[in-house]
Amino acid sequence: MTQNIYDDPEFFEGYAQMPRSIEGFAGASEWPAMRALLPDLRGLRVLDLGCGYGWFCRWAHEQGAASVRGLDVSRKMLEKAARDFPAEGIEYMRTDLETVNLPVVAFDLVYSSLALHYIEDLASLFERIHTALTPGGRLVFSIEHPIYMAPQNPRWSIDKNGHQSWPLDSYFLEGPRITHWLAPGVVKQHRTLGTTLNLLLRANLSITHVEEWRPSPQQIAARPEMIEELDRPMFLLIAAQKASL
Amino acid sequence: MTQNIYDDPEFFEGYAQMPRSIEGFAGASEWPAMRALLPDLRGLRVLDLGCGYGWFCRWAHEQGAASVRGLDVSRKMLEKAARDFPAEGIEYMRTDLETVNLPVVAFDLVYSSLALHYIEDLASLFERIHTALTPGGRLVFSIEHPIYMAPQNPRWSIDKNGHQSWPLDSYFLEGPRITHWLAPGVVKQHRTLGTTLNLLLRANLSITHVEEWRPSPQQIAARPEMIEELDRPMFLLIAAQKASL
Repeated sequence: MTQNIYDDPEFFEGYAQMPRSIEGFAGASEWPAMRALLPDLRGLRVLDLGCGYGWFCRWAHEQGAASVRGLDVSRKMLEKAARDFPAEGIEYMRTDLETVNLPVVAFDLVYSSLALHYIEDLASLFERIHTALTPGGRLVFSIEHPIYMAPQNPRWSIDKNGHQSWPLDSYFLEGPRITHWLAPGVVKQHRTLGTTLNLLLRANLSITHVEEWRPSPQQIAARPEMIEELDRPMFLLIAAQKASL
Repeated sequence: MTQNIYDDPEFFEGYAQMPRSIEGFAGASEWPAMRALLPDLRGLRVLDLGCGYGWFCRWAHEQGAASVRGLDVSRKMLEKAARDFPAEGIEYMRTDLETVNLPVVAFDLVYSSLALHYIEDLASLFERIHTALTPGGRLVFSIEHPIYMAPQNPRWSIDKNGHQSWPLDSYFLEGPRITHWLAPGVVKQHRTLGTTLNLLLRANLSITHVEEWRPSPQQIAARPEMIEELDRPMFLLIAAQKASL
């Protein structure tokens, strides 16, 4: 089963304080870039893998999605989602994405924000997503960028001349990365960018866009410290599509 | 016009000493991975962009390609190619890839090894390649990996504990990178991986495989110093395809 770090009290407490938890999309710098990859949601059946507090489910509902289903492994987050954003047409379900059975040809859009880098068997999940999508249906997801996740010591390094860089190593050593983020022992799964793309292709999902997220000039103007995000990519956003009939 | 560094006497002299110049494919570590992306060449019309000494042109001819055309900006390299590998069915031509006019629906395979990272207007070249390909035709190419090319100081860094890493910075600062490789002032064009992939997609070329090259266990056994290549990708190999009719 996927590690359920989000129900760890220490982690949950820390995550609840993050801008993206309090402000939703306004606190998620990559949201404008994600949104740009989404189709018009009106009338679509939408599945959100790793829905967390339900921000996207609510938004999809407001955009006119025909139905929205949000899956997550965290009981605490789903309870908060159902409390904060109850709505006809949104269904939250606790489930493990490693093994979840998805209905066949049931969704026009599968969405996932910063969840799939916790998944060990991504090949299997992509196959299940392909089966769950309607012909022409889309998968849009974000993960931590592998350049961000790979290093043994994923922190900025400053050399003796004061120059800052990202000390990349271990890029081809795929597998678990254990970090101390909000709580000790958070396990993420590192895969190269090539591996993730080739897993999509092998699941018969064609790639339609690959976005290595960078802050916009407006975002940097508002928060000048974000300029360091131009030195290495933090998030990877991918749009893919199942063939039309 | 593309910088023609290969005809610089100092560069040409240095390049001529490289294993890949002397040994051909045997001296090019990424060749087995490139070859794995190629279709059966029998009967195909093949175009090689940046053919250099003509190793690939000769190989394609030996594999039974119906015709092989090799383009390069370097007069010296083409003269050596024509001298070393003359053959019925191979045609070498000196041309600038930035502006070359390619014939319409004329090639089943467009191949390019470590040349396209010199090109400034890659969007235009991908469009011309799309036009030049037959329906279902393939583009297989390698470039320096953007992680390898991006840094202001693209050299391994050793920290005070003796740990080696690749000091990534400037990843999102796309544009020229001037390096001293064999000769001073070699100009390469840095683009993020996302940009390269999205340029392909916008030219209506679908991505079929993305290989961030790594040495095989056999290659590392033969040359143990290659193990550092597992820390960051050096080459990027991409296979793409024009839609079938």
